[in-house]
Amino acid sequence: MTAQEAAWRALEDHAARLSGRSLRDLVAQGPERCAALTARACGLTLDLAKERLDGAAMDGLIALARAGRVEAERDDMASGRPVNATEGRAALHMALRGGVPPPEGADAVGARDRFLAFAESVRSGAFRGRGGAITDVVNIGIGGSDLGPAMAARALSPFLDGPALHFASNIDGAHFADAVRGLDPARTLAVVCSKTFTTQETTANALLARNWLGAGEAERMVAVSANPSACRAFGIPEDRVFGLWDWVGGRYSLWSAAGLALAIGIGAENFRAFLAGAAAMDRHFLETPLEANLPVLYALSGIWRRNLLGHGATALIPYGHRLSRLVAHLQQLELESLGKRVDKRGRALPRPGAPVLWGAPGTDAQHSFFQMLHQGGEIVPVDFIAAAQPVAADPAHHRILLANCLAQGQALAFGRSQGETEAEMRASGASEEDIARLAPHRTFPGNRPSTTILLDRLDPETLGALIAFYEHKVFTQAAIWGVNPFDQWGVELGKTLAARLLPALETGDTGGLDPATAALAERVRGLDGGG
Amino acid sequence: MTAQEAAWRALEDHAARLSGRSLRDLVAQGPERCAALTARACGLTLDLAKERLDGAAMDGLIALARAGRVEAERDDMASGRPVNATEGRAALHMALRGGVPPPEGADAVGARDRFLAFAESVRSGAFRGRGGAITDVVNIGIGGSDLGPAMAARALSPFLDGPALHFASNIDGAHFADAVRGLDPARTLAVVCSKTFTTQETTANALLARNWLGAGEAERMVAVSANPSACRAFGIPEDRVFGLWDWVGGRYSLWSAAGLALAIGIGAENFRAFLAGAAAMDRHFLETPLEANLPVLYALSGIWRRNLLGHGATALIPYGHRLSRLVAHLQQLELESLGKRVDKRGRALPRPGAPVLWGAPGTDAQHSFFQMLHQGGEIVPVDFIAAAQPVAADPAHHRILLANCLAQGQALAFGRSQGETEAEMRASGASEEDIARLAPHRTFPGNRPSTTILLDRLDPETLGALIAFYEHKVFTQAAIWGVNPFDQWGVELGKTLAARLLPALETGDTGGLDPATAALAERVRGLDGGG
Repeated sequence: MTAQEAAWRALEDHAARLSGRSLRDLVAQGPERCAALTARACGLTLDLAKERLDGAAMDGLIALARAGRVEAERDDMASGRPVNATEGRAALHMALRGGVPPPEGADAVGARDRFLAFAESVRSGAFRGRGGAITDVVNIGIGGSDLGPAMAARALSPFLDGPALHFASNIDGAHFADAVRGLDPARTLAVVCSKTFTTQETTANALLARNWLGAGEAERMVAVSANPSACRAFGIPEDRVFGLWDWVGGRYSLWSAAGLALAIGIGAENFRAFLAGAAAMDRHFLETPLEANLPVLYALSGIWRRNLLGHGATALIPYGHRLSRLVAHLQQLELESLGKRVDKRGRALPRPGAPVLWGAPGTDAQHSFFQMLHQGGEIVPVDFIAAAQPVAADPAHHRILLANCLAQGQALAFGRSQGETEAEMRASGASEEDIARLAPHRTFPGNRPSTTILLDRLDPETLGALIAFYEHKVFTQAAIWGVNPFDQWGVELGKTLAARLLPALETGDTGGLDPATAALAERVRGLDGGG
Repeated sequence: MTAQEAAWRALEDHAARLSGRSLRDLVAQGPERCAALTARACGLTLDLAKERLDGAAMDGLIALARAGRVEAERDDMASGRPVNATEGRAALHMALRGGVPPPEGADAVGARDRFLAFAESVRSGAFRGRGGAITDVVNIGIGGSDLGPAMAARALSPFLDGPALHFASNIDGAHFADAVRGLDPARTLAVVCSKTFTTQETTANALLARNWLGAGEAERMVAVSANPSACRAFGIPEDRVFGLWDWVGGRYSLWSAAGLALAIGIGAENFRAFLAGAAAMDRHFLETPLEANLPVLYALSGIWRRNLLGHGATALIPYGHRLSRLVAHLQQLELESLGKRVDKRGRALPRPGAPVLWGAPGTDAQHSFFQMLHQGGEIVPVDFIAAAQPVAADPAHHRILLANCLAQGQALAFGRSQGETEAEMRASGASEEDIARLAPHRTFPGNRPSTTILLDRLDPETLGALIAFYEHKVFTQAAIWGVNPFDQWGVELGKTLAARLLPALETGDTGGLDPATAALAERVRGLDGGG
């Protein structure tokens, strides 16, 4: 038996030992257990006290991490080895923020200075549209070239003091049309973000943008790309192209020039603070023993939920409107990185990996799907994210927001038994008939795990730390599950098939298609008025 | 054995019979099977051809629906019986759109005419702010008073030709602040939507709105509420209050005055078309035999996935930017209605109910979590929603959008075997070493079910039909699982606990709290600068 298999076996014993212990029992052990399951770094507090864990189980998980060579793999990544083995590349997003050195010969600092200087020139009005200073920026990109900047722009809305930011990602032409509605093309900057400059959605939207801006205006567009000759062919001059590195994947690219629109919105100084927060988390991840390492502890708790308790989904509930796009960013980060069926060497995985990640901001979600989280037939563990201090928001509102967040974790963990429900109803004067009829509906089973990630405040630095925290959590789980978190072969087939299907929709020739797809294509053709 | 249990047993036999049949096999049976698993009504086509089903299994599911008295329960709902038994109420949202008659004495038509006339007066400029005609409307509400109107406003963006719409729902004060940024209070109408007028978030945001509008401006606000005296006490005159009915729950209220902001945006005529589309789907649901009844067939396919194939989550992928808020609306509708642990009589359910419902628009999601849908360890069935005809969008873009949608369903269903992958790689000149190394990563297991819901076009009428389709699908599953889809007792405990926790956050007195919550509350206090 390998060290890893021995560690898994030991964990199964821990799970069996704890299977009869409810969260009520575990938490009742007192404040020492809570303190032992709480860790803090870089403006983040990770609170695992309401997980169905104890110190001994966490020790077992740490042993699993050691057996999985998490530290060695981490150091391989940091030193620039080609840890993205299927694509033969390093994964050095940490180098974009100064967490580790860049590869030999790569002037990451110079490239950063250059796009930040451009951002400042747009903000100051030194760079102008043909109608004057830039008032609006449209970011054209999809996946990592969209989700990260859009998430951060909303999260940092109090720090947005430059041109207004807009995002167009979908191939659906409605997205670009809605994004630029009401904007003045003479004062709008289009930023086209695509590493290859061949991404179908992005090139299609770039063409819409070029038309919308007006004849000869491609030269006023900006590109973020590793393919300057394609940019030039499109009409964007070379000095308006900001590079991307081949050692950074799309979902880790927010820290590079892919963050240009964000930098224009919040300014170079705030963008540098965002990078600094991430770099601080990098150092924490690289230097802190596993036992106190926030991303590692969070990763291990996720492994416990997924592989030992068997939960197939995680609900992510950020408390606060400004984090409403965080779920979408983390869905890409987690599920594109960890949604794999084979390990790095191509062998089928013996255990399921990434659970479904879904969610919506609280308190909104309380008025939506929380019914299911509390009383549904399937237990869905919850991750709450909240900020202790308000930023540009009423403190009294903020305190109510936090009270709700803490209360939901409490309700999930401890529930309200049928006996308690009956007693409460009786005390408030309900009839025995109503008690008998309604108490089962008003009973909460509890024993539902949740984690709370508490930020000191939602500012550029802490947001940087939070996103880096998630990146390293994903890396740690990838090391334990044995998968490559930096490739995404699973997006390939759909693209190939779409290219084959398009002519069928254009011409109506469905020969060669399977019967189900042929029938659907014919129906589309019959309904679209163009058939 | 009851008729229901017999029907479940028969379905288990069907599942066993089909367990060795892949989607490749099933679809290869030819176009007849596809046609038999496709149905059409009210501008919607429901295509179940890529579900792991056949006609015999569907017959078994229809038998389950009959055993579950779906038809009788449906007729009970339509006739105004108190089908929301725990709350002793009827569920007559269909009466709001003319699908069935309203209860005796309820002037649903008059109420509708009144709020639509008001909407028109805002649009025409007859109703004015103190600074002139209304340019912006802020809808203040949460849950059903927010998700439905916000979803429909985005879906129907080409039809928005009135004042611009904004939405503030979260107790987080940042939401209201961001929603009104840049608006002119003298030309903004605030619509406060709360049945009880005691919803914490909504009353807090209504206070922010009243302050923001300026002294004495409450009388220019509008309320949608069943509690006119609370509105009056707040300062909103009675003739500016539009009623809500006690026979309509929040998540079914979009069709009532809770849709006022939407009506102001799209106008009375489009709003009436939206209602007419829903009413047409009501008649279809009420009058069509189960075998051809779209919501029933969709419900049954969901039961098959959940209870016979054991899938715990459904991904909902609308193709098109304008449907990007549909997932949030349907999460409330489905999970608040079906996320229950006891049946109507309070008995524990023998089978799990509502699966997790999550998703994001395609093509965006293709660049995010589709990796996991194609190659993740857990099969997540997918529901695609797309419109055949473009509305106010480039036809070529729209065709690419549809090609992508169809291609994803194809890739999920049929995958690409390792042998096929190796052959394709070999044909494109890959080395044997690369083939051996990469083919496992580039292999797609397939056999992953998906449903396609094809709209003729995304317009008010078809959107109405789509939302009503989902409402009736939820009702059908509730009948089969035996749960009440109209109550939501599971949201109660969190509210109670939040009210108890707030003083602890204000004063720091954490006595009486469990150790985990006390530690977290103390940490919040220590970090928030107000401790």
